[in-house]
Amino acid sequence: MTPRLYISAALKAGAAAPLSQAQAHYLKNVLRRSEGDALLLFNGRDGEFACDIVELKKKAGLVAVKVQTRKHETGPDLTLCFAPVKRGPLEMIIQKAAEIGVTKFLPVITERTTAPKINCERLEAIAIEATEQCGRLDVPTVAAPVKIARMLDDWPTERRLAFCDEAGDDEGAEWGGREGRAAPALETLKTADSKADKWAVLTGPEGGFSPSERKCIRAKAFVTPITLGPRILRADTAAIAALVLWQAALGDWRRS
Amino acid sequence: MTPRLYISAALKAGAAAPLSQAQAHYLKNVLRRSEGDALLLFNGRDGEFACDIVELKKKAGLVAVKVQTRKHETGPDLTLCFAPVKRGPLEMIIQKAAEIGVTKFLPVITERTTAPKINCERLEAIAIEATEQCGRLDVPTVAAPVKIARMLDDWPTERRLAFCDEAGDDEGAEWGGREGRAAPALETLKTADSKADKWAVLTGPEGGFSPSERKCIRAKAFVTPITLGPRILRADTAAIAALVLWQAALGDWRRS
Repeated sequence: MTPRLYISAALKAGAAAPLSQAQAHYLKNVLRRSEGDALLLFNGRDGEFACDIVELKKKAGLVAVKVQTRKHETGPDLTLCFAPVKRGPLEMIIQKAAEIGVTKFLPVITERTTAPKINCERLEAIAIEATEQCGRLDVPTVAAPVKIARMLDDWPTERRLAFCDEAGDDEGAEWGGREGRAAPALETLKTADSKADKWAVLTGPEGGFSPSERKCIRAKAFVTPITLGPRILRADTAAIAALVLWQAALGDWRRS
Repeated sequence: MTPRLYISAALKAGAAAPLSQAQAHYLKNVLRRSEGDALLLFNGRDGEFACDIVELKKKAGLVAVKVQTRKHETGPDLTLCFAPVKRGPLEMIIQKAAEIGVTKFLPVITERTTAPKINCERLEAIAIEATEQCGRLDVPTVAAPVKIARMLDDWPTERRLAFCDEAGDDEGAEWGGREGRAAPALETLKTADSKADKWAVLTGPEGGFSPSERKCIRAKAFVTPITLGPRILRADTAAIAALVLWQAALGDWRRS
């Protein structure tokens, strides 16, 4: 299989393009490639190109860009707002969400967020690796963490927010709010505002959202509360499940 | 939070029940519980019971079973047939699938299966841990591995098999078979035989199924081929995604 790598530099047929030290090392010592071998490169804006390896040195590499193999394209506009969790599940969320097609990651600090400081560079690297592997042309971005109250205040109201309300519905009625009960994700998304073409999914930490956070979130007109079945899902499972259902109901997993 | 554990012994209000060495150690040294503390126990057939810890010794523990808190119930009948993959993603599949609600795991050996021998006891332990955590009352079983040809020959035809045909559809037409193209999972499952109440999902190894395997699988009348979006999913992501979509389309993630 032809290796497929992301670079940040411009790509143009007939030109040369640089490889980083890590990429040169990976191609040479892990994949055992050498000069003259084929490679696919993409940069998140110019599409994908067939290339030949020209040079693999210790500190860098060089390729000859031949022809464009795919034009640039982006998937549906889908942000994942997630409370950071422990390293293993966190990295799982990033990898799987990038494969499923998230375009932006927004770490959200909630009352019960107990995870240590997150390393955005590390998360970006995981997102890029998943992008390379799954054949995407656009690379999801990782935003700086933001507190939940700030996120809700600054929310662009044309973007809908599917809120994974795992604690369910028992307390809902008291609020006398917009909806007494959160409803199953698929049916809710299927009947959601189909004019909205920008969406986000919000998932909580292992301990869930606090009652006051749930109240604040559900009071917003841009929020669609959803549930994910009768069992209690881990934070990473919930994030993956909600994104899959969104893609199948409203995104590019539908019949085109 | 009250710990919730699975035991294999019978459970009856007013009786005593045993804890294993591992459970006694976990309660005492990890959760710092002691005699008199509360505990929930279930055994996959008698429901769930509130219990009090009577004794936590080095080699075993003992609890007093008080009252039944939930009657036994089982989820929809859903088997996951999966080609074993490397340890990390394999354990991910078992954990997430148990949370999502799989009732049986069937490891399937395919042409391109490269994973080492699987340890069924280890997989059972992961499934039980996920069951304890997610609040299920029934424990998924782990069957012994079977070769794919044997699985197809011995298949109980009343059970439908959703085949994650990740290689997609390009080769489909040549076969002149039952369906030229595999179709998006959600729409396909939504319109599938709604009288079938037993289902399975089949996912392949990282390298996918071979063309001859795909042909054999798709020739079976009990098979429903499905696709999971335009990006290439890892084996574990594909398994999780297909199970989520099945539960949302046909299982217990629907509005009851």
